[in-house]
Amino acid sequence: MDTLSLTGKELAAAINADTKERTAALAAGMHAPRLALIVANDDPASAWYVNSLRKAAERLGIACERIDLGADATAEQIREELTARSADTSYDAIMLQTPLPAGVSLNDVSSAISADKDVDGVSPLSLGLLAAGLDGFVPATSEAVVELLKHHEIPLRGKLVAVVGRSNIVGKPLAQLLLAEDATVTVCHSRTADLAAVTAAADVVVAAAGRAGLVTGKHVREGAVVIDVGTNEAPDGGIVGDVDAESVRGKAAGLSPVPGGVGPVTTALLMRHVVAAAEKLRG
Amino acid sequence: MDTLSLTGKELAAAINADTKERTAALAAGMHAPRLALIVANDDPASAWYVNSLRKAAERLGIACERIDLGADATAEQIREELTARSADTSYDAIMLQTPLPAGVSLNDVSSAISADKDVDGVSPLSLGLLAAGLDGFVPATSEAVVELLKHHEIPLRGKLVAVVGRSNIVGKPLAQLLLAEDATVTVCHSRTADLAAVTAAADVVVAAAGRAGLVTGKHVREGAVVIDVGTNEAPDGGIVGDVDAESVRGKAAGLSPVPGGVGPVTTALLMRHVVAAAEKLRG
Repeated sequence: MDTLSLTGKELAAAINADTKERTAALAAGMHAPRLALIVANDDPASAWYVNSLRKAAERLGIACERIDLGADATAEQIREELTARSADTSYDAIMLQTPLPAGVSLNDVSSAISADKDVDGVSPLSLGLLAAGLDGFVPATSEAVVELLKHHEIPLRGKLVAVVGRSNIVGKPLAQLLLAEDATVTVCHSRTADLAAVTAAADVVVAAAGRAGLVTGKHVREGAVVIDVGTNEAPDGGIVGDVDAESVRGKAAGLSPVPGGVGPVTTALLMRHVVAAAEKLRG
Repeated sequence: MDTLSLTGKELAAAINADTKERTAALAAGMHAPRLALIVANDDPASAWYVNSLRKAAERLGIACERIDLGADATAEQIREELTARSADTSYDAIMLQTPLPAGVSLNDVSSAISADKDVDGVSPLSLGLLAAGLDGFVPATSEAVVELLKHHEIPLRGKLVAVVGRSNIVGKPLAQLLLAEDATVTVCHSRTADLAAVTAAADVVVAAAGRAGLVTGKHVREGAVVIDVGTNEAPDGGIVGDVDAESVRGKAAGLSPVPGGVGPVTTALLMRHVVAAAEKLRG
């Protein structure tokens, strides 16, 4: 079977074109959207990602300011910064970069981001609005998975989707979004007894466990669609996904590449969220 | 195979014994816990349930006040009442009874219940705290399912659990709780293409769809455990679950009865939440 490459570049470009127009309209009203990127680590992968976000923002006319709290910031310092930026009307949007300093968890600090600026949907209130089916910002990566599937016209209604990974920022919110699309959803994780048996029953497999090569050909039934959310560091310094593409290709009907699949759509959706936050806060 | 009856009465009694002690301790400090039960319907089943909650509260020494807004209350009136009770320090806990008036959804009003009094965990913030794995009140019915399984020593870690139903107050929060117990969780619903195929693969099936007799013997594999969350009105005026007990008995290793299974545990947990809210608010 020919395996289609489910790239995200076209979709990202379409989203970005719309965002650019909306940003220009805001800027014409003297309100260019402004994003605060809060960083409290000295991780090279994080620095690389922050840099790519800043470039993406710049291309779209979004002001993006990196606020560095240092790798030894305390939970209290991070909360104070998030609270201050939430109250500061010169910012429309806030993103807290991970990893956080040792001993600080996202749950310790995320509630300090006000929901109307929480463009990556990490605060408890944002997660709850999603769970309730109410308006709010959805974690961009999980939204990107659904948007990528829709863009490539993969049906979800009544289909069985296996999500591999149960993180608060990808697996669990993604399950909510897929249920809202009328998919039947199984969430698998490191404690799943027979991962291959569960995923091989699915019409769509989403790999979001953060482990290179976890999902292989034996995890995927002939003709299924596979979305790879992984961004793991490769030995050569590049990034590789959670899917062993070689063994899946030829068996799956479609596979999203890493890089170039979910990633660009995630960035585009984040920037769209920033503009939406600005429109709402200033509109 | 002999099918064990997974009753909830023993567990409910144990929870209630603890609650009664804690209530007495609070009452000794002149702070008997107080619950506001907000009703905006003239539904007989709801009236019956409210009455049973009031009796349960009374037996435990919890003051329980029914506040009737009438079946034609508007969303605004309900929100105002919830906001007022949230601010009113003479109440420790708030429960909004369903059904709501025609045209009013739980989502229209639930955010007006402050999370510290939201003992049935229906507000977006409560749902988000659950999704994030943070402290908060969990919807009592979904918590009752997990507690009933634990009480009967049904293992969950690594097991495949099928949840039939994706409501915001049972199916979806239950999926979160089961994931936290390291179960692999599939959420099925009315759009699931082949329900029997999905549920028959599961070690544990939880029927929470609100349809009498939906889960039958063909939905359950030999030796699986079945929890029945349904409370449907029977033609004779009694209540029946979502499980066709006759066809499941002899095949399942265990089945929770209706009534007498999840129900009494749910009520006991609700009352425990009321006392916990009182301890926190007054402690």
